[in-house]
Amino acid sequence: MIGDDVLRETTAYLHEQIPLTRAMGVEVAAYDGAQLVLIAPLAQNHNHLGTAFGGSLNALATLAGYALLWLELKDRTAHIVIRKSSIHFQHPVRGELRAVCRIPNETELGAFRRAFAHKGKARLELRVEIVEEGAIAVNFTGTFVAVR
Amino acid sequence: MIGDDVLRETTAYLHEQIPLTRAMGVEVAAYDGAQLVLIAPLAQNHNHLGTAFGGSLNALATLAGYALLWLELKDRTAHIVIRKSSIHFQHPVRGELRAVCRIPNETELGAFRRAFAHKGKARLELRVEIVEEGAIAVNFTGTFVAVR
Repeated sequence: MIGDDVLRETTAYLHEQIPLTRAMGVEVAAYDGAQLVLIAPLAQNHNHLGTAFGGSLNALATLAGYALLWLELKDRTAHIVIRKSSIHFQHPVRGELRAVCRIPNETELGAFRRAFAHKGKARLELRVEIVEEGAIAVNFTGTFVAVR
Repeated sequence: MIGDDVLRETTAYLHEQIPLTRAMGVEVAAYDGAQLVLIAPLAQNHNHLGTAFGGSLNALATLAGYALLWLELKDRTAHIVIRKSSIHFQHPVRGELRAVCRIPNETELGAFRRAFAHKGKARLELRVEIVEEGAIAVNFTGTFVAVR
């Protein structure tokens, strides 16, 4: 069970390290062993049509990947970067932005941790969904790299 | 020749319509018939490593696509949205963020304008490069849709 203090500490870490996350109002809402959830209000993140700005949705999905790898790797000396990503906007998001990154299975995570431990470098593909009212609005896939 | 007032008006329109662009400090720096250039300072847009945040770079590239289509379509009643995009981060950006969107050739733009005029809907793929010191740091490709 993950305590609320981990969510608050991770939110504070994001706000300290990446100033745009403060402007976006990003919060780590959940991290429960199955998934990590980041949220941000529409007010700071809307576009010219009053729906969520694609750039905010992409940033939130990217941050979900970073946060998941920080929490799973438990090694703040690891430099985590994003190498590439693709995103597909299926439906506009009309309310709060909510990015859900499912934690990869133990086989994938184990290979990532071993590669990082032995070679000081590892890569992992993460999928993030932006969900609203139970439906997937946006699909994001990113390739993240951890370097010592 | 495009006057500075067009650059200032387009910057103001972005800041009004998409509040994150104010937080990012986005400015339309050039629009000269060959390309559109958006810039943003590193101070508001850095990541945990002190280089440009991938989410900011993606947002800036997306905004370059929006701004180019607004300016080329000259129809503020057009609803322009992004359908999908992909991005490849080749090198970290260590200074000002600079997104360059080359204006498509007249054949492509003409087809886009005609489809929009006749069907009230048109799509266009745009490429945006993030450049620093003459080198391409990031490649972005986005599919944008205009709907009446």
